[in-house]
Amino acid sequence: MTSLNNKLDKLRALAAPLETSSSTRVARLRKAGEHADRFLESLPERDVYTAAGPRDEAMAAFAIPADPEPFDDALQVVSQHVDGVGHNLGSSRFFAYIPSGGLHDSAIADYLAAVSNRYAGVGAAAPGATRMEDAMLRWLAGVVGYPASAEGDLTSGGSMAALSAVVAAREANNIKSADIPSTVVYLTAHTHHTFRKALHVAGLGECVIREIPLDARMRMDCDILRERIREDKNAGLRPWLIGASAGTTDTGSVDPLDSIADIAAESSIWMHVDAAYGGAFALCDEGKRRLKGIERSDSLILDPHKGFFLPCGIGVVLVRDGQKLFDAYHARGTYMQDVAGDTERSPCDYSAELTRPSRALRFWLPFKVHGSRAFAAALEEKLLLAQHFFDQCGKIEGIELGPGPDLSVVTFRFCPRNMESDVASRALLKAIQQDGRVFMASTTISGHFTIRMAILTYHTHIEDVDLALQIIEDSATAIRRQ
Amino acid sequence: MTSLNNKLDKLRALAAPLETSSSTRVARLRKAGEHADRFLESLPERDVYTAAGPRDEAMAAFAIPADPEPFDDALQVVSQHVDGVGHNLGSSRFFAYIPSGGLHDSAIADYLAAVSNRYAGVGAAAPGATRMEDAMLRWLAGVVGYPASAEGDLTSGGSMAALSAVVAAREANNIKSADIPSTVVYLTAHTHHTFRKALHVAGLGECVIREIPLDARMRMDCDILRERIREDKNAGLRPWLIGASAGTTDTGSVDPLDSIADIAAESSIWMHVDAAYGGAFALCDEGKRRLKGIERSDSLILDPHKGFFLPCGIGVVLVRDGQKLFDAYHARGTYMQDVAGDTERSPCDYSAELTRPSRALRFWLPFKVHGSRAFAAALEEKLLLAQHFFDQCGKIEGIELGPGPDLSVVTFRFCPRNMESDVASRALLKAIQQDGRVFMASTTISGHFTIRMAILTYHTHIEDVDLALQIIEDSATAIRRQ
Repeated sequence: MTSLNNKLDKLRALAAPLETSSSTRVARLRKAGEHADRFLESLPERDVYTAAGPRDEAMAAFAIPADPEPFDDALQVVSQHVDGVGHNLGSSRFFAYIPSGGLHDSAIADYLAAVSNRYAGVGAAAPGATRMEDAMLRWLAGVVGYPASAEGDLTSGGSMAALSAVVAAREANNIKSADIPSTVVYLTAHTHHTFRKALHVAGLGECVIREIPLDARMRMDCDILRERIREDKNAGLRPWLIGASAGTTDTGSVDPLDSIADIAAESSIWMHVDAAYGGAFALCDEGKRRLKGIERSDSLILDPHKGFFLPCGIGVVLVRDGQKLFDAYHARGTYMQDVAGDTERSPCDYSAELTRPSRALRFWLPFKVHGSRAFAAALEEKLLLAQHFFDQCGKIEGIELGPGPDLSVVTFRFCPRNMESDVASRALLKAIQQDGRVFMASTTISGHFTIRMAILTYHTHIEDVDLALQIIEDSATAIRRQ
Repeated sequence: MTSLNNKLDKLRALAAPLETSSSTRVARLRKAGEHADRFLESLPERDVYTAAGPRDEAMAAFAIPADPEPFDDALQVVSQHVDGVGHNLGSSRFFAYIPSGGLHDSAIADYLAAVSNRYAGVGAAAPGATRMEDAMLRWLAGVVGYPASAEGDLTSGGSMAALSAVVAAREANNIKSADIPSTVVYLTAHTHHTFRKALHVAGLGECVIREIPLDARMRMDCDILRERIREDKNAGLRPWLIGASAGTTDTGSVDPLDSIADIAAESSIWMHVDAAYGGAFALCDEGKRRLKGIERSDSLILDPHKGFFLPCGIGVVLVRDGQKLFDAYHARGTYMQDVAGDTERSPCDYSAELTRPSRALRFWLPFKVHGSRAFAAALEEKLLLAQHFFDQCGKIEGIELGPGPDLSVVTFRFCPRNMESDVASRALLKAIQQDGRVFMASTTISGHFTIRMAILTYHTHIEDVDLALQIIEDSATAIRRQ
C-alpha cells in the first residue's frame, strides 16, 4: 500500500494544475470577460474580414506544452491567432453567406452549460437540460405551425439537422438498399448542397436526383415538379422525397410551399423544407405570411444561429409526425439498462447523437432575457431593410437586380455599358471587399457571377445598409470610370 | 422614406433589448461566474444524483416570455431546474457510465469561442480557429501513433465520430447499395451500440453483422474472428469492416488490437477502433502500452470529454489515410465559390457538418494552461486507482470480480450465500445509489446483472475510491444481514 500511495501521491502532484481553485476560476473568467469585451467593443470599428498571418507561426503558437503556461499567454494567442483573423460573422456590416449575430447571452449560456455539464443525451441523467430542450422544440414547433405530435432535435447546425430529417424520411418510407437506385428525390439547383450531402451520408447517394427548374423568382417550378413526378411514376420509379427551400442561400427565395405540399400530398411524398436560414422569420407576422405552407411539410430544419442571431453551433430538425423521428433513431446499450424504464424524454431517441453538449440553454437564455417580441421585431426590420436595399440598389447606374426579396437576401449584378457583366460584377465585389467596411460574397445564377447581400444580424440597421449602398455606388462609379 | 424610417425606428426600439451594452455584458458574465462558482464549490458536498421535480413546473419555468425578464430570474431557473437535477458527471464520486470531468477552462473556452463566433467550417472564413483544430488533430494523431498523412475531425461526441468513420470506410470500400446485404461487419456484444447506430444512419443497416464472441477477459476472440472471416469469404460474402474497441463501456476491456490489425491486413478489411473512452490513455506510457496496435487501425474515435476530462460536447474521429476522409466528405455549394480556390484546410471537407461551433478552443485551452504532463499523470493515476479498487473490492465478502481492469473500469457482482446473485447485485447497486455519496451503474454480462465502477474524472483520487469501497462493504454487509 505504501508503494501504491507513494506513486499516487506523485501522480496527483503532477496532475495538480487540473484542479483550479475558486479564486483561479474567478480570476480567469474575469480575464476572459475582459478579452471578450475588448473584442465586442472593437467589432464596430473592425474590418469585417482580416486575412491570417503565416500558417507556421499560428501552428507554433498552438503547440501543446508539457508544462502549464500562463492563462494570459493563452488569451494572447487567442486574440492574435484566432479571434483577430477571418470573418466577423456577427458584425452589423457582414452581408456575406448567411450572417450569424452571436448574441452574448448565448455565449454565457455555453459557459454555464459546460460548467454544470449535464448529460443531455438521456432524460433520466439530466431531466432539467432535456426538458428545456423539449420546451424549446415545442415552442419552435408552435412558431412554425407544427402540431403537438411533432418531435425534433437540437443539432450542431443545419447539416446535421438535414441528415436527421433525411434518415427519418428514409425509415418512414421503408427504403431498403435494393430499392435505392429506383427511388427519386426532387430538389432544385438552389437546394443547399448540404441536403445532397445528407443524402450521401445517409447512404442514399444512388437515389435518382431530379433537379426541378427554377421560375423567374428563383423558386421551384411546381408545374414541372408535378409533371416530373408523373413521368417518374409512369417509368416505374418511386418518388419519395422533395427537398424544398424556405429561403435559399443563393437568393433567399422561398419555394411555393403550399403548392409543393399539395403535390406531396397527392403522391404521398415526404416533403422536407430547408428553412435553415428562412424559418426564423415565422416568428414575425410578415415572415409567417411569406412562409405559408411550411406547416404542411413532413420535416423541416431551422438554424437558430442564423435567424435567431445565436452564435454558430445550433440547428433544429422538426418532424411533423414525431413518432417517425423516434422510430428512425431509438436504440440503447445494455450499459444504459438503469435508465431503460425511465419516463423522461431522451434526446438520443430522436437523434444520431448520444453524448453531446447541452444546447438548450444557449437557445433559451437569449429568449428569456430579451423576450420573443424583440426577436420578432428584429426579423421584421430585416425584411424591411432588404426591401429598402432592393429599392435603392436598383437606382445605382449599371446595377441589375435579381428578383425582389422573399426574405432578407438581395442579389444583383453590375452591367455597365462597354464591359462584360461577369467581369464588371467580379470587379465590383472585389472593390467592395477591398474597402473592408462591409463584406459580401457571390454566387453563380444561371451561369452568371452574382453578388449577394444578406441582411441578418440583430444589430444591422438602416445605417449599415445605407453604408453598403454607398460603397456599391462609389465602387461602381470608380469601375465605370477606369 | 419617412414612412419606412418610422417603421424601422419602431421595430428597432422593440428589438433594442438584443443590443446589450458593455456594462450589461460584464455584469451578466460576473453573475454567471458567481452562479458557476457556487455550483462548483458545492459539488464536493452534493449527492452525485438528484431527482427532478414535477415536469409541469419545469416546463412552466422554461416558457418563452414575450417581454424581457431579469437575468437573475433566468439564473434562478437554471439553478433550480437544470443544474440542480440529474447526474453530476463531473463529481469526483461519479463512477457510472463514463464520467466526464468538465474542466473549467474548457467552459471558459466555450464562452470565448461563442463570443468571437468564428465560422469554423471553412478555412478561409476562420483561418485561426480551423488551424487550431488542425493543430489539435495533428497532436492527437501523434499521441495515438498515427502517421502525418492522417486526417480527422472534431465532432460533438462519439456517435458523430463513429458515423464519420463508418462513412469514410463505406466510401473507401466503394460499397454500393446493391452490395450491402452481402457485406459483413464484425463486432462484439460489447461494441458500443452507437457503432451499430452509425451503420444504421449511414444506410448500412442491412449489412450482415457478425457478433464475435468475447474471451474470458471480455475481449474479442481473434481465433473466432479469423475463422468467421474465412467462412464468410467461402460463402461468397464480403467482409469489409471490423469494429474493435479500446475500452468497452461495459467492462473497459481493450480488444487484442495488434492481432486484429494482423487479421484486418491479411484480408484487406477496414479496422475501426472505438477508443471513445480508452483512447486518451495513450497519453501516458502505461496506457500506450495497453493500447498497442491502435496505431495500425484505419480509423479510430476518441472522446476528449471522457479521458481528457473536458465537458460533454467533443469527440474526435481520426482516419489513418486522411485522403479517404476527404474523399468521403468533400462537397461545396456555388455560394461558396469565393473560397473555392483557398488553400486553408477546411473542416467541412472532412466532416458531415458545415456550420458548427468552433470546438478547437475547448480542447486546446485546458492543455495550454495545464500542460500535457498533468493530463498524462492524471490518467496514469486512474489506471492505478482501478487496480487498487480491483484488489480491495475482491476482499469484500461475497463480491465476485470481473476480469482485471485493462483500463479504469472494474465490474463486479454480489454473490452472498443463500441469495440469488442477480437479486443480491441489484440490491447492492440500489443501496449504493440510495446512499447518494457515490454513483455507479450496471450492465448485463453473460446474462448476469453486473455493477460497473468507472474511474475517470481528473479530481477522483484514492479517498473517493476508498469511499466507494467502504460504501460497497457497508451495503453488502447490511444486505447479507437482512
